[in-house]
Formats: sequence, structure tokens, C-alpha cells
Amino acid sequence: MAVAPIEWADGRLRLLDQTRLPGEVRYVEPATAEAVWEAIRALRVRGAPAIGIAAAFGLYLGVRGSEARTREAFLADVRRVAEYLATARPTAVNLSWALRRVQRRVEVLEAPVDTLKAEVLAGALELLEEDRRTCRDIGRRGAPLLAGARAVLTHCNAGGLATAQYGTALAPIYHLHEQGHTLRVYVDETRPLLQGARLTAWELLQAGIPVTLITDSMAAVVLRQRRVDAVIVGADRVASNGDTANKIGTYGLAVLAREHGVPLYVALPTSTFDFSLPDGDRIPIEERSPDEVTHLAGVRTAPEGVDVFNPAFDVTPAHLITAFITEVGVIHPPFGPALAQLRKDLGR
Amino acid sequence: MAVAPIEWADGRLRLLDQTRLPGEVRYVEPATAEAVWEAIRALRVRGAPAIGIAAAFGLYLGVRGSEARTREAFLADVRRVAEYLATARPTAVNLSWALRRVQRRVEVLEAPVDTLKAEVLAGALELLEEDRRTCRDIGRRGAPLLAGARAVLTHCNAGGLATAQYGTALAPIYHLHEQGHTLRVYVDETRPLLQGARLTAWELLQAGIPVTLITDSMAAVVLRQRRVDAVIVGADRVASNGDTANKIGTYGLAVLAREHGVPLYVALPTSTFDFSLPDGDRIPIEERSPDEVTHLAGVRTAPEGVDVFNPAFDVTPAHLITAFITEVGVIHPPFGPALAQLRKDLGR
Repeated sequence: MAVAPIEWADGRLRLLDQTRLPGEVRYVEPATAEAVWEAIRALRVRGAPAIGIAAAFGLYLGVRGSEARTREAFLADVRRVAEYLATARPTAVNLSWALRRVQRRVEVLEAPVDTLKAEVLAGALELLEEDRRTCRDIGRRGAPLLAGARAVLTHCNAGGLATAQYGTALAPIYHLHEQGHTLRVYVDETRPLLQGARLTAWELLQAGIPVTLITDSMAAVVLRQRRVDAVIVGADRVASNGDTANKIGTYGLAVLAREHGVPLYVALPTSTFDFSLPDGDRIPIEERSPDEVTHLAGVRTAPEGVDVFNPAFDVTPAHLITAFITEVGVIHPPFGPALAQLRKDLGR
Repeated sequence: MAVAPIEWADGRLRLLDQTRLPGEVRYVEPATAEAVWEAIRALRVRGAPAIGIAAAFGLYLGVRGSEARTREAFLADVRRVAEYLATARPTAVNLSWALRRVQRRVEVLEAPVDTLKAEVLAGALELLEEDRRTCRDIGRRGAPLLAGARAVLTHCNAGGLATAQYGTALAPIYHLHEQGHTLRVYVDETRPLLQGARLTAWELLQAGIPVTLITDSMAAVVLRQRRVDAVIVGADRVASNGDTANKIGTYGLAVLAREHGVPLYVALPTSTFDFSLPDGDRIPIEERSPDEVTHLAGVRTAPEGVDVFNPAFDVTPAHLITAFITEVGVIHPPFGPALAQLRKDLGR
């Protein structure tokens, strides 16, 4: 990945505006918590890990000007801004996870306000660095699963653009590419917002990896014709039993992969596990604006007066998933006990 | 259906230009066989029955100016123009079926050239009238299957716009609506060309039938949440064993319907059966231009240099189909013997 989607330099946050890709490589520099909230909401920055990191920097931007004189008053400011930023999008657990982690880091310190402010920034920077390491580790851990493959299918963008760098679902593909084994990647365009066509295809081509773009409705034929050896996707939130919320369309793809005997891998940092939920039924699913479905590239393509159902995510039941690929290792079924053990290991 | 997609009046063919919908209701008047070929190829007129009818008028337009003096020379002209028109699109069998039918009608006559010319036109007009009757009969025959339903899901456009009027998959829905039982129709937008969003949603709303538009990738969730009681689609070609070629995405939808215990009905005129093919393996599948996938509303949405796989159709194996709805009745499994009997009944 030549292009870094999130950067912090000279006291400024720089986000690659992903709504402009692939036509235009343009950056935005949100300077307030509100501007970061807007950037997350409008999907200028998107992908579960990336929005967590961006929100952490948003938290810093929201409190660095705080006039609180006492530790308690400052911590109240931190809490208020964190709660606000967590509302930008509801489904990805990384958003609240990242904010809580920075918050806790600050709350345990007995120090003057200026030190606490610096600590918020340090927390965001740590997330950024950690995410880079995590994604590299996901790539290394997942690579053996794809070592015999010639081609894989992915949905949406769980690539470098969805993280600080390198990606989750695409990490094993980048890893193998660096080792000299280049896979072809079939990319679902991923309606309505075309993250596959606009982002995944773009970043893979930038890295020199061949891409075949399809509409979401063609995945069934690609699987049936055995054009791919595996399906690999990211995740926005995974419950304790392995039920997985991810971009709308993942559930249907999971059923189709199973039907055709093609393995389905979900690649994710362990921060995407939400151990507070027993299963996927309670994962909140964001419904987005009807305009995303009725308009394309700003042009209305559906008649006025049509109703729209536009869930941004769906939940894939654990039994359709072959394995999870995380930075600490590959998790095989049965997922219940394996994830209970992971939770213990992580001390969560 | 207030709007007729194909009309013949005062010696002129009038086609509703479906590439302009829903934004603009505009007609084209192709005056030559070449212009009809272009209208079919460019999808100004589309849908298996409709392109058969349009091609039959195209045949007339192509031979009405013939300077042949003898019956034999004229029949050679008819054959040449029919063969040319049949190349406009490869998958829908109705195209060649309609052309062959008109051709045969003329070939059996021993008459002067002018009479034969009139006979070509009569053949096209008969197809138009017959299609209207056929679609009404499909509606009447299919209605009992949906009588207990509150909502159904459809893919692409197998509505009035795909036929002379009334449609195939939508015919039972229009029939029930006229009887006072109005279903809600979930409509897959149907990438890449959005026939669902642009055409099906438009014509249903024109008729006062409520529509919920979804992206193709949302169908799995709609089925899982039991928002619909049935899936109903049209067909472009059905082999002797019931394997069905239809718009890309139908196969995946069929797998998902089966997974969720939702019946899948295929509505079609008997002219769509191709008894010359034992199964779906030999149905030719049209691959269309990559631009359909890489561009939306004329705007490039995918990066330069990306490969594209763009099959316009897929084949749904017969075992995933609950029943066929035709103008002569509903056909239940096992389809092999039932379709062999139908072939005999039709004298084909």
C-alpha cells in the first residue's frame, strides 16, 4: 500500500477522502471532533478498524482545546466527546472499543490536565501503530490458508483503506504477494456504495495484484464455475458464538460459498469481537439513506415514490464460517469454546 | 400497464426506449432491420418475449422494400434478414423462435411477393396480439399460487415492459391487483443495468402497486427475515429438463430461496422452452461490455485497468425451481416428464 488512509503529522489529522476514489486521490484534514464525526458518518474514512483509529484522533481533537482545570473536569470532557463520537456509526464495535481504550488509558492516570491531553494523543497514535502491526500479523497468520489458491473472492473493502494499512481480508493476499505468490482477486462491486469497485479494486491494482470486478449478483456463478478457491471478507462485529456482522451481501455470499463447498474466511483484529453479545441477534444494524439505492453517481435511477430497504450490514451465522483469521492466530470451529478461550487470553 | 412498449401503427414501429426510463418516457421509431437490430442490441427493447416481437417487425421492415420478383428470391431475402436479426442477442430463445415462426408462415404460402410481404407483417402482428393474450393467461394461471401471499420478490424486469403488455413474472401480480388483492413487490435493482430499479419499480408504481427497492445483495436478508412469501422471475430460455437461463443473479437468488424455504416460480410463455436442448449446459450465455460494470450513469466508478467478468445471464438448475407458470397452466416437478408432455401437446 503506497497510500496511507490515516496519518497524523504536525498536530494534524489527514484522512484520504475515500468517497472520491478511484477518480481522485484527495485528503481532508478534519480539525474538530465534529469534523471527524462527519468524516466517519459520510464514509470519507470507513472500515471497522479505520473508523476506530480516526475516532481516537477525533477524541484528541475534541479535548485538546479543553479549558478544564481539574483532572475530573477534563475526564468529563473526554467522556462527553467519546460518547458523541461513538454515535457516528452504530454497527462496527471497533469505534466504541477504540474510544473506550483511549478513555481508560487516561482515566487511570493521576496527572495534570496537560499530561492527560498528551495521553489521549498517545493513545490514538498507539492504536494507529498497533493496527499496522495487527494487520501484518493477520496477513502472516492467514497466508497458509490461501497458499494453495489461485484466486479468491472478496466483498466490500477490508483492505488497507479500511485500516491504518495493509487491511484485514486483503492482508493475507498482500503477504503472499510479497512472498512472490500472486493471487487473482475477484471483487464484488458491493452495492450500494461500491466499496469493492471503488476501493478494493483500486488498492489491489496499486499493489500490482490482478483484479476481476463483478457485480454482487455474479458471485454465485463465480463460485459455481470454481473460478475461486476461497472467499475472504472482513467483519464489523463478531459475537461470542462467531455470528458475524459485515457489509450487506456477506450473508448471501456465505450461503453461496457453503452451497458450492468453497471455504469462507473472516479476517479481523481481535478488537472486532464483541464478547458482550452472546450471538448476532443483538448486533444493531445501521439502515442508511434510501438515496444510496435510488441514485448512482448523483443521478436518480429509480422512480420517485419507491420505498427502499437499505440495511448497511447483515449477520452471517457462525456455522457458515470456515475459520476466523486474527492477529493472534486462526480460529477453527467449534467457535463457542475457541472464542471463550480467546476472551480469557485477551483478559476481556 | 398504461404504456405499451411495442406498437405498430400507420406502417411504423414504435418502441418505448427503455434505456431512458425512468427519467424520460421517449419512443424510438426504427425504420429498418438494422435499426431494430440496434434497438435490441442496445436494450432499448428488452425482455425475451418483447425482443421476439420487435424482431418480427424488424423482419417486415427489412423485407418490405425487397425488389425480389419471385417467391424464391423473396424467401431468400426473408431468410437473410431473419438470420441477421437473430444475431442481435444470443441467449433468449424467443428471438429466433419468433423469427422462425414468421418465416414458416410465409414459406408455406404459394403466393405473389406482395402477398408474402403482407404475410410477414401479419405474422408480426399476430405475435403481438398473441403475446398480450399469453401474458394475461400467465397472470390468470399464476394468481392462485400467490393468493395467500402479502409480498413477493422479483429480479430484473419480466413485466409489461418485457412483453407486449402485462408481463410474465409480474402478470400474476397485476392479475391479483385487478381482483383487489395488492401485493407488495420487493424489487432487486438488478445490476449492472438496473432493470429492476429503472423498469420494474417504474411500471409497478404506474399501476399503483407498492414497491420496495433493494440492491441485489439484500435479497438474502429479505428472504431470511421472511419479508416475502415467494420469489417470481421470468426466463430467457428453458431447456427440456427445466434448467432455466435468466438474468444474471437469478441462480444465486434460487439457491437463497431454497435455503430459506421460499418457493421460486418461473413465469414464461411456452415459446421460451427450447426443447432442442436436453439441459442448461448448452444454453449460450451472452457476455456484455465491461463498461456496464465499470461505469454508472456514464461515470467511471472502477479504476482503469481492472478486468471484468460480465455474463448477462446465468442458468438455474431445475431442482431449485418450485414450478413454471405458463399460459397453458402451472407445471410442477418432476419437470422432465411434464415438459416432454408439454412438448407433445404443443406439437413441437
